[in-house]
Amino acid sequence: MNHNSAPIALFDSGLGGLTVLKALALALPHENFVYLGDTARLPYGSKTPQTIRRYGEQILRVLLQRYGPKAFVIACNSASTQFPEGEWEGRPLFNVIDPGVEAALQATENGRIGVLGTRTTVQSGEYEKRIKKAAAAAGRTVECFSQPCPLLVPLAEEGWIDDPITNLIAHRYLQPLMEKGVDTVILGCTHFPILLPSIRKSASGRALVECGPTLAERMKAHFPPSPQSLESGEVRIVLTDSSERSQALSRELLKPIEVDEYSWIDIGPP
Amino acid sequence: MNHNSAPIALFDSGLGGLTVLKALALALPHENFVYLGDTARLPYGSKTPQTIRRYGEQILRVLLQRYGPKAFVIACNSASTQFPEGEWEGRPLFNVIDPGVEAALQATENGRIGVLGTRTTVQSGEYEKRIKKAAAAAGRTVECFSQPCPLLVPLAEEGWIDDPITNLIAHRYLQPLMEKGVDTVILGCTHFPILLPSIRKSASGRALVECGPTLAERMKAHFPPSPQSLESGEVRIVLTDSSERSQALSRELLKPIEVDEYSWIDIGPP
Repeated sequence: MNHNSAPIALFDSGLGGLTVLKALALALPHENFVYLGDTARLPYGSKTPQTIRRYGEQILRVLLQRYGPKAFVIACNSASTQFPEGEWEGRPLFNVIDPGVEAALQATENGRIGVLGTRTTVQSGEYEKRIKKAAAAAGRTVECFSQPCPLLVPLAEEGWIDDPITNLIAHRYLQPLMEKGVDTVILGCTHFPILLPSIRKSASGRALVECGPTLAERMKAHFPPSPQSLESGEVRIVLTDSSERSQALSRELLKPIEVDEYSWIDIGPP
Repeated sequence: MNHNSAPIALFDSGLGGLTVLKALALALPHENFVYLGDTARLPYGSKTPQTIRRYGEQILRVLLQRYGPKAFVIACNSASTQFPEGEWEGRPLFNVIDPGVEAALQATENGRIGVLGTRTTVQSGEYEKRIKKAAAAAGRTVECFSQPCPLLVPLAEEGWIDDPITNLIAHRYLQPLMEKGVDTVILGCTHFPILLPSIRKSASGRALVECGPTLAERMKAHFPPSPQSLESGEVRIVLTDSSERSQALSRELLKPIEVDEYSWIDIGPP
């Protein structure tokens, strides 16, 4: 059987999902990837669930028609609330919430889990719901504490990484979770791993769950390396609104993964 | 002649323009105001000029049909780049850029003006263009230095006012302007006056130009108090996407101005 060289297609509202692409490309180096960032319509975080679902379906259709991918990845926490793990048009569809939930349940010893998210993700209550459901299915009881962190996305986009100011802000957001005695913290937004050095400083001794690497582990089981797949895969990035700044930021976020092709697409009204 | 009790209609992409509404309501206490915040589609800062113009015209039409205002105010710096001062459907139309430009030219002694703005406003180059044009018309030469401050809007919305972290961030943004020797700084975003205590700490001795009060001065000339206008005016707020949080934030931003009516409107596709 030949290795299926069709790409794995990721979609995010912007550039944060590149942290997921990076994790996947490192874990599955022989796969091809195409990443669509809907930068023209970001942020999704402040849109209604109906709008997010409509935009998401439109983008999945564009990805299907243009790239014929073998799998879809919703690399955006806000959009993941609307697309549960399963299938779409006969292809497996993954998201960034479910693997994190599972990893957090495996990591926690005291059953106290903290979630950092955007205001919208926290307000959706989706993490809490899925954590409690998965815990109940395993006959466990867990407590879940969520903290909205609206400044972390703009800080990551500003590029203030491992910066004294970012350390102070991360500390302020994490303090309430530390006071609740959580032993595990989910980074519930694809932008947050960019600020990992600062988050780690204020969460020492706690397990930190990132979406990208936990999803990569899960996908490795679906896409095992085949003997034929010796060449390094291609990485293509497509943005709905491109600027020099977003290209520079993309390259920075993906290091050491290199981008083979950049392009721009106007996907029109949903 | 009777006092024309038709309202003055303001429009902004979100809640930042409430700093302008507050300044106008304090300066023109007998006028009625209606404020439309397009919170469902914010931020405008990351949209193309064409989209901003389309959304803006749609909202001006809605305001005209529903409220029959006697004047329009574009209370949003991003949208002000698309709507120069003038008339719209026979009513005077004001924006928040032109009065600030004029006030800065009056304030500067050394001809070195700094502008704080969102990334989009700075990239538009609109302040620099209008400052240089107005200076040339007055036979003066000025130098203009702009600083994008992407974290200030989320900080203001997070409500971290006069906070040590906000002080540090304001200092970092203002430092390059101070090194250029500016003696006047324009707060080129309607959100920034919310952070005035922090901005003032890092810009001591410099003239700070706010959009709201400078626009209010200009409008007082257009709408002098009439002998009949003794009653206090009404303030109505209409949002395209309303939440408890945005209502609470609105009340906080407007103090001591009280809101007489809150409502929600779905204005549909543009």
